[in-house]
Amino acid sequence: MADVHKEEHLRSSDLITDIVIGMSDGLTVPFALAAGLSGAVSSTAIILTAGIAEIAAGSIAMGLGGYLAGKTEQDHYRSELKREQDEVEAVPEVEKAEVRDVFAEMGLSEETQHLIADEIAKDKEKWVDFMMKYELGLEKPNPKRARNSALNIGISYIVGGIVPLSPYMFAATPLEGLKWSCVVTLICLFVFGFFKAKVTGQNPWGGAVRVTVIGSVAAAAAFGIAKLF
Amino acid sequence: MADVHKEEHLRSSDLITDIVIGMSDGLTVPFALAAGLSGAVSSTAIILTAGIAEIAAGSIAMGLGGYLAGKTEQDHYRSELKREQDEVEAVPEVEKAEVRDVFAEMGLSEETQHLIADEIAKDKEKWVDFMMKYELGLEKPNPKRARNSALNIGISYIVGGIVPLSPYMFAATPLEGLKWSCVVTLICLFVFGFFKAKVTGQNPWGGAVRVTVIGSVAAAAAFGIAKLF
Repeated sequence: MADVHKEEHLRSSDLITDIVIGMSDGLTVPFALAAGLSGAVSSTAIILTAGIAEIAAGSIAMGLGGYLAGKTEQDHYRSELKREQDEVEAVPEVEKAEVRDVFAEMGLSEETQHLIADEIAKDKEKWVDFMMKYELGLEKPNPKRARNSALNIGISYIVGGIVPLSPYMFAATPLEGLKWSCVVTLICLFVFGFFKAKVTGQNPWGGAVRVTVIGSVAAAAAFGIAKLF
Repeated sequence: MADVHKEEHLRSSDLITDIVIGMSDGLTVPFALAAGLSGAVSSTAIILTAGIAEIAAGSIAMGLGGYLAGKTEQDHYRSELKREQDEVEAVPEVEKAEVRDVFAEMGLSEETQHLIADEIAKDKEKWVDFMMKYELGLEKPNPKRARNSALNIGISYIVGGIVPLSPYMFAATPLEGLKWSCVVTLICLFVFGFFKAKVTGQNPWGGAVRVTVIGSVAAAAAFGIAKLF
């Protein structure tokens, strides 16, 4: 029972999170951009150039964004750890009161609060770990996470972006390219949405429909707006 | 002392998080896309069309993405809440053991673990709340969050995207537009990076430089790659 329970609560891994982040935008934005241009320009070469520039821009912006997010998390963890270590030395009574606050919020009696705070405060290392995790809600980040995250997100964006763009390589006109781009991309969005929902523990069919609708709405809006201008 | 401490640990609000998400990409991706096209096409009209299509596509994709993320969080919370409520009724001993596990992980003695588990289990509502927050790490989401998040992210993306694009409206050639777009956008990226770092509690000057570098690298890469094709 406990095992089944744990398994169903399982969170998706970092790698899957990165792929989902990169591929969501990679499939959608270049698709919608190319659709928008198809309504406004007469050459597939311009669409391909714009699409490739977008994939380069988007993958680098998102990849480096993922890198910075990872680095920020590490810096933040380190600076808060330093602060808690200093405070446990400098103002132990304040820190003990903060331990009790955590348990007060859980609704435990004052007596139990004091008992626990004294027990935790016996070991300073454990005490600091407790403050980091339960007062501040910070988990120790993986040092390789920033670099891995940048690569995973960037590559997923590129892979996703090639899908909607490739039909324009073989099409004679932008509108013919758009037709095939819609077919290929909507199928991929549907499949991607299905698995994305599956790994995040949602209804896969609902997820497939939602992701497909987002892509379609973005593409239709880009097509309409670009035609207007 | 406790007050100062709290203030410095303050997390940025949901609104600021949304603005940062939307504006990071809104400033960077249309900037880099327009830069890429400037190296490959001869008309500012095409750059403006592509840029507007990109802003439409990006703001909708990111806005709806934010909406879905909010909705997913709500659904997930509701389904886990239902599960915990059922389990507290059906298998109370298993759930009590899970309460003890939380405190075992904190490094508390078995005796204390039992004492706390018994105290928490006295009030079923509190017990379920405890499991949600400390076993699963889930906070009750704000029901309006999904809609607000979609609007905030989408509008921030549009506001960000107008910055790098507007110089092309007044420029005679793409490369002249690019020159002014670089000036205006790099200043905005620097200022944006400064405040982004400030609200997330990092070094503002470092943040300003990092965000500006990301934007420059993405634009330079898009320019180089589009010129190659």
